[in-house]
Amino acid sequence: MSTKIFLNEQDIPRQWYNLAADLPTPMQPPLGPDGNPISPEMLAPVFPMNLIEQEMSQERWIDIPEPILELLLRWRPSPLHRARYLEKALGTPARIYYKNESVSPAGSHKPNTAVAQAWYNKQFGIKRLTTETGAGQWGSALSFACSLIGLECKVFMVRISFDQKPFRKTMMQTWGGQCIASPSEETQAGRDVLAKYPDTPGSLGIAISEAIEAAVSDESGQTRYSLGSVLNHVLLHQTIIGLEAKKQLVIAGEKKVDVVIGCAGGGSNFAGLAFPFINDKINGADIDILAVEPASCPTLTRAPFIYDHGDIAKMTPLLPMHSLGHAFVPPPIHAGGLRYHGMAPLVSQAAVEGLITPESIMQLECYEAAMLFAQTEGMIIAPETSHAVAMAIRQAKQAKEEAKEKVIVFNLSGHGLMDLNGYDAYMSGKLFNYSLPQEDLDKSLEAIKGHPPVTAAKTGKW
Amino acid sequence: MSTKIFLNEQDIPRQWYNLAADLPTPMQPPLGPDGNPISPEMLAPVFPMNLIEQEMSQERWIDIPEPILELLLRWRPSPLHRARYLEKALGTPARIYYKNESVSPAGSHKPNTAVAQAWYNKQFGIKRLTTETGAGQWGSALSFACSLIGLECKVFMVRISFDQKPFRKTMMQTWGGQCIASPSEETQAGRDVLAKYPDTPGSLGIAISEAIEAAVSDESGQTRYSLGSVLNHVLLHQTIIGLEAKKQLVIAGEKKVDVVIGCAGGGSNFAGLAFPFINDKINGADIDILAVEPASCPTLTRAPFIYDHGDIAKMTPLLPMHSLGHAFVPPPIHAGGLRYHGMAPLVSQAAVEGLITPESIMQLECYEAAMLFAQTEGMIIAPETSHAVAMAIRQAKQAKEEAKEKVIVFNLSGHGLMDLNGYDAYMSGKLFNYSLPQEDLDKSLEAIKGHPPVTAAKTGKW
Repeated sequence: MSTKIFLNEQDIPRQWYNLAADLPTPMQPPLGPDGNPISPEMLAPVFPMNLIEQEMSQERWIDIPEPILELLLRWRPSPLHRARYLEKALGTPARIYYKNESVSPAGSHKPNTAVAQAWYNKQFGIKRLTTETGAGQWGSALSFACSLIGLECKVFMVRISFDQKPFRKTMMQTWGGQCIASPSEETQAGRDVLAKYPDTPGSLGIAISEAIEAAVSDESGQTRYSLGSVLNHVLLHQTIIGLEAKKQLVIAGEKKVDVVIGCAGGGSNFAGLAFPFINDKINGADIDILAVEPASCPTLTRAPFIYDHGDIAKMTPLLPMHSLGHAFVPPPIHAGGLRYHGMAPLVSQAAVEGLITPESIMQLECYEAAMLFAQTEGMIIAPETSHAVAMAIRQAKQAKEEAKEKVIVFNLSGHGLMDLNGYDAYMSGKLFNYSLPQEDLDKSLEAIKGHPPVTAAKTGKW
Repeated sequence: MSTKIFLNEQDIPRQWYNLAADLPTPMQPPLGPDGNPISPEMLAPVFPMNLIEQEMSQERWIDIPEPILELLLRWRPSPLHRARYLEKALGTPARIYYKNESVSPAGSHKPNTAVAQAWYNKQFGIKRLTTETGAGQWGSALSFACSLIGLECKVFMVRISFDQKPFRKTMMQTWGGQCIASPSEETQAGRDVLAKYPDTPGSLGIAISEAIEAAVSDESGQTRYSLGSVLNHVLLHQTIIGLEAKKQLVIAGEKKVDVVIGCAGGGSNFAGLAFPFINDKINGADIDILAVEPASCPTLTRAPFIYDHGDIAKMTPLLPMHSLGHAFVPPPIHAGGLRYHGMAPLVSQAAVEGLITPESIMQLECYEAAMLFAQTEGMIIAPETSHAVAMAIRQAKQAKEEAKEKVIVFNLSGHGLMDLNGYDAYMSGKLFNYSLPQEDLDKSLEAIKGHPPVTAAKTGKW
């Protein structure tokens, strides 16, 4: 009784799918500090021009360069698994499948875009990448990619994670990356913060500021900045997940998919699985596509669609997205990768268009789901992924009630071997449920009250 | 350019290979306290009779029961990789392959025997398994297996590892296993030690004593003990590694293998890859089969072939093996899985027969190899595995000098994501080379001076 569906290497997708080409309403452009759309040239000190062009592209299919394919083939195509043992435990007539992105050497889906970004930067003559990392997943993935391609990599890691998760730093160093606690003495932004708050635990906002400053202030012009989620080109690179999954579902004999599920923080793993299915949906298929976020950080389910900065320090342009406000302080839940105030513009727009259904879920249900998954399917998953599993279980139970043979597919975005402290906290009874109080949300949104709304007019191209 | 060679699920081997059937000199039996061969019945309180029969079997091929195949198929066949990027970095004409056992949910080869042992125990009506674990790899694997099969699992974990590696405990608990610091108050053996040395860091010897006592003292008769290496049936279950690898090498177009390499602690991952190739060697093939151990714990390279206990507390029968002496105190190297005083009797006998070549290697060369592997092949490997990688690199360099197109295969026994403290110590310059001083070896061997030698006479069956 087979549980794994492999795709042959020669059948790996050779193009990425760009949802921007198919959205009923065109994507709105990012805005500069003056409220006007920014030009590609304004981004040139931050990103290489080949990626800026990709960020703006309206082409539906974009060829994956052969050298990137070769990099991806080191661990791809990733297996699709049939969750037969979970199904049995639930007694559901649903057939549950999961795409296993934990098989990459860095343990998550993040290397899909990390190797692509590193390659495009190298092509453009760049020698060095900077980035920030919170929990460490993205910093590890970019260090891994730079190691394979031959770029230097400098990662600004939020101080508190740097201290609490020393092994993430070790992973980056093993791949030759440099990992620095943020705020640091290396940038003006870091020095300013340290002068005022020498004992600060740091924040993603500060780390982003430092990483961007470190990139743009390199006078040789050979350093650029790299981001692991949110932006269009990042989501584009992740669509190989869903494109592979669709081929594997055909191999598994499935003619129709009913429910597609991904957890959503910045949006990249969700988009990776979901966007190719949104394409089907736009073409008439009847599919529920669920983006699952923590109730403590309810960006898609409760925040407005508005122009906002991607970082607390307002270094980035204003992006059209669902946002809790760039000054939002995420509560201390254990899914570090889902604690982001904004949501990728493409995912936000898809939600506004009604192409996907946002859902939020509490922490304890997620861990309960992760424990059941470990004891049936055998794999210990990342806390982020547990949001997708919990929703898949809800859907499978509903299918049981309705006695329906639903086909459910979710993205197993990463393993949890570097996040076992969360499991320990759960088993020790130290975790609790937390839904963002309305007054906290209101207060956070106050800071972006004057920001321009995102019009839904069918205008605006970059 | 493909780097992964998959085996289709339907081509998974359906029999294990038993080297005992093919050794020129028959294996000698274990001896009881009186110096006489022990009977199967004497082992019955410790192991279920179906595994005792397997331990004694002289059959060359043993069918893998269908339910065990189904368990193995959750992650097997494991991929064979061609190490093209490592080859390129070395500029070697050798073709290097590695069997990737890190893909199991527990992250190593250990689940291959864990699921088999759990299944045989369940078949025999057993409800509960006990075991010991040092670094935590085996305890995790058995907890994983018991979770899938529906057995209780109690793991006695050496106190110092229990405190230093809390995440291993969390892994076991996530799979429903119970993990107890050893020495504990749960057994007489543990209480005796605690009364004398309340602050003891524990040892594998004490933990084995506790696990065996906890099994044999259960008056319901429904508890048995399980061991993760050394014994014949454990090595038997691991031979699926080499049997798969041989099929995959044929798919890769290799007509001849020149060198087979595995790291050797108790012997199980080495045997798993190597034994099926020893079969070829016995039948005339020209293959170098290298068992690589740390110079700090040189069981095969410097210890005598003698009857000795498997544990410090002398709870086990006398086994015919290479042994540094059961009271040997391993030095603090970072490859916890290779710090064992003895070597599996089957591996020991193969060494005595000249079928395999033991090699020892220093710690720094191993970590240097692991770093190169991470930065070329992309994977962070277990410190144990680094011994095999270091030897593969030596062989590849030699092939370069000789301008020979050698085919080298090694076993990537596990990933290193739970062992990053070793990498950190290496990169911080805190590790050093250490070869066991002769006087320490002599002193350790003093304690087993009166033990019977293992005769090489062609006699003795159980």
